[in-house]
Amino acid sequence: MTEPTTPASGMRDFLPRESMRRRRVFETIRDVYESYGFEPLETPSMERLSTLLGKYGEEEKLIFKVMKRGAKLSRALQQDDVDDEDLADLALRFDLTVPLARVVAEYPDEFPRFFKRYQIGPVWRADRPQKGRFREFYQCDVDVVGSESMTVEAEVTSALAEALDELGFANIRIHANHRQLLDAFMAVADVPDSKRKDALIAIDKVEKIGVEGVREEFDRRDLSESAWETLSPLLKWGDPEARPDVDDEALLDRLADQVGDQPDGEAALEDLRQLAELTEGMPAGDALFLDPSLARGLSYYTGPIFEIRSDDFQGSLGGGGRYDDLIGMFTNREIPACGFSLGVERILVLMEERNMFEEAPRPADVLVTLWDDDLASESAELARDLRASGLRVDLYPESDDGFGKQFGYADERNIPFVAILAPDELEEGVVGLKNMESGDQTDIERSRIVERLQQAVESL
Amino acid sequence: MTEPTTPASGMRDFLPRESMRRRRVFETIRDVYESYGFEPLETPSMERLSTLLGKYGEEEKLIFKVMKRGAKLSRALQQDDVDDEDLADLALRFDLTVPLARVVAEYPDEFPRFFKRYQIGPVWRADRPQKGRFREFYQCDVDVVGSESMTVEAEVTSALAEALDELGFANIRIHANHRQLLDAFMAVADVPDSKRKDALIAIDKVEKIGVEGVREEFDRRDLSESAWETLSPLLKWGDPEARPDVDDEALLDRLADQVGDQPDGEAALEDLRQLAELTEGMPAGDALFLDPSLARGLSYYTGPIFEIRSDDFQGSLGGGGRYDDLIGMFTNREIPACGFSLGVERILVLMEERNMFEEAPRPADVLVTLWDDDLASESAELARDLRASGLRVDLYPESDDGFGKQFGYADERNIPFVAILAPDELEEGVVGLKNMESGDQTDIERSRIVERLQQAVESL
Repeated sequence: MTEPTTPASGMRDFLPRESMRRRRVFETIRDVYESYGFEPLETPSMERLSTLLGKYGEEEKLIFKVMKRGAKLSRALQQDDVDDEDLADLALRFDLTVPLARVVAEYPDEFPRFFKRYQIGPVWRADRPQKGRFREFYQCDVDVVGSESMTVEAEVTSALAEALDELGFANIRIHANHRQLLDAFMAVADVPDSKRKDALIAIDKVEKIGVEGVREEFDRRDLSESAWETLSPLLKWGDPEARPDVDDEALLDRLADQVGDQPDGEAALEDLRQLAELTEGMPAGDALFLDPSLARGLSYYTGPIFEIRSDDFQGSLGGGGRYDDLIGMFTNREIPACGFSLGVERILVLMEERNMFEEAPRPADVLVTLWDDDLASESAELARDLRASGLRVDLYPESDDGFGKQFGYADERNIPFVAILAPDELEEGVVGLKNMESGDQTDIERSRIVERLQQAVESL
Repeated sequence: MTEPTTPASGMRDFLPRESMRRRRVFETIRDVYESYGFEPLETPSMERLSTLLGKYGEEEKLIFKVMKRGAKLSRALQQDDVDDEDLADLALRFDLTVPLARVVAEYPDEFPRFFKRYQIGPVWRADRPQKGRFREFYQCDVDVVGSESMTVEAEVTSALAEALDELGFANIRIHANHRQLLDAFMAVADVPDSKRKDALIAIDKVEKIGVEGVREEFDRRDLSESAWETLSPLLKWGDPEARPDVDDEALLDRLADQVGDQPDGEAALEDLRQLAELTEGMPAGDALFLDPSLARGLSYYTGPIFEIRSDDFQGSLGGGGRYDDLIGMFTNREIPACGFSLGVERILVLMEERNMFEEAPRPADVLVTLWDDDLASESAELARDLRASGLRVDLYPESDDGFGKQFGYADERNIPFVAILAPDELEEGVVGLKNMESGDQTDIERSRIVERLQQAVESL
């Protein structure tokens, strides 16, 4: 057979080393989120196709559709002019937000008044595969459903700041802005409703194309000179290097001078002021960076918005904000919500590139040798005793192989110690303990080997 | 909108309580497997359709196929007589074994000589949904690739015995048999090759239909009277209650009397003898139960086979064995392997039914109250300090709600303690600590609250 054995296009195999690293990252994030009282939710990989259709606009074409089966498929194939929506009934989930909205609608009595949930799991998008972009990738979402209070924003941003800190990302900034503040600026700048989307798109590009680029975008999109004059200062204030040396309070005062008399602007500034105060003594405090130019695309946000950036790398580690109109999509009720999606795949790539994983994970702490079949039970019992003490132990399986080969295997698997049992050792009541890094080998009494190995492993 | 919001047919949502329980089970198994030196492997949810086709016989029709997209789909739809294999290019994985075989073929230089891997993850089958049977369900596989030694069987069975013990399943039996022993019996019983499958199917049903039922199956399948006379004692020996009071050695001797002169029989008995000896001092030892009637269906096993049963429940908690012809399916090489699949979904159902989960998981250890916006920063800082000490802390978000409502929320979320901060407490430099179970409330100095709460949570 010459079947291809690579993963399908855009898919990945995670071999043990990478799998362990991914797990460590997910567990670090999970532990921090749980310390904030967030609870795990798991939704199925597949949703009804109809649940997902109409929710993702242009991106809808990237949904992986799953074919009907059996008689239903046969019937569909017999239709004239059959198209893909006749042939599929299920689809792989595209994100973790629509499933959350479905769950909130389905189990109204199961959740507390404020539902704080996180979900870390794969989503699937039929994107063109390219470097760093996959068709199956993990999302890591945290959301609070049911409250409009700014303490929610403070907790969500603090939880992610703490998670990133635990992962080793110092020096991050949580850029924060408010959708209604942008609306107020649009009003003051006399940008007509029909042009506001264009203006937001242009402003949103500043990190990529710079201030001059945005200026050109404004011209290209026929935005007025006076609009530019009102809106361009936002770009400067949002740039950590160009920004005048003002603290949050002073910046908020300046913004208030411009849009404080707009109802939208006043409410937005009050939210941001409260957020800055609340986070002052919290993990988000040092990282929070008011950035009146942050726009977060054309998404569904209705209040504060966030994005994580750093001088240490390009682009963003994730984003989020308040979206009070979305979670109710299946219920006809408006349900306030605020959430954040950490870009875990990007985080994993950066951690790999920047050697942020502390050590190569070991598959086992010690390898127990196998001399011959007669001594196999002795070796198995040694392995048992070592495991009972909490050590991770591999037992060499083949008694035909000499110890040289067995040591080589320990080396290949990156196992730091080998416990040697041969007739001599057995007769003397000892176990040979070999340190694979130094090559040193010493005899330890059988009755003390567990303790000695525990110490040796701990001191690694 | 009146869109359905239930999960799609055969799919499940796991709300926090259940999600946490599932995780606890998976992590318990994982930790035991890792203590035996097994490493995690993750393969993608989707494989090429061609990778899966031809691997599952009759069951192949249960594979979920994923539709082609864009131009490829349009082209396929324009064909005459289009069928489902023209329309799909990907499929959801059906088990974890074919992906393992693909991975072993794809990365020959990445694995040590003996590759010990576990994988815990979902698979998808378009089965008719019914009680306890789902279309997305977890499998939990452990396999050793590359060795023919019986130490592998001893380690695999010990690891799963230990995992089940950790989960609280006492009183399990690991039924063990050997495919070649069954072959030897077939030879001695003069069952023609063409009838051996029938005989195995009949024997395999004994747990369900009893000895008399197997007898009828033999008749129905035209198996000879002499075949019954040779094979029926196996049924008795495999029944823990009917079995004569013999130890493993005596049973193996009896079996040797009957088939020891068959080459297959001799080799099989030697394997089983070695396995019984090796496991004697290992966690599998007490549970191992030689059962010469165990057949494990029509599967691909070539050596020892295993199945977990108990007097405490019907059916099996998982099965496995040696399968030396399968892992090489993509390589043209024969690669020895031995593995075991724990029935984790069944385990989860049993644990739920039998109240084996120790306590209801708590989403947080303590709720910090919110008096009003002026005190919000004080509450946020108290939450921060408590979290820094390792406690899991929820901060009540809405300052409009009275403390009665806030206590109610703690109760609803099953949070055992509430830390109360109001102007009186603040002025006196204390925090009110309310035990939600007893209702007791005491004032604790702010400087000592972290320590006191830690003690209180530990003593729960």
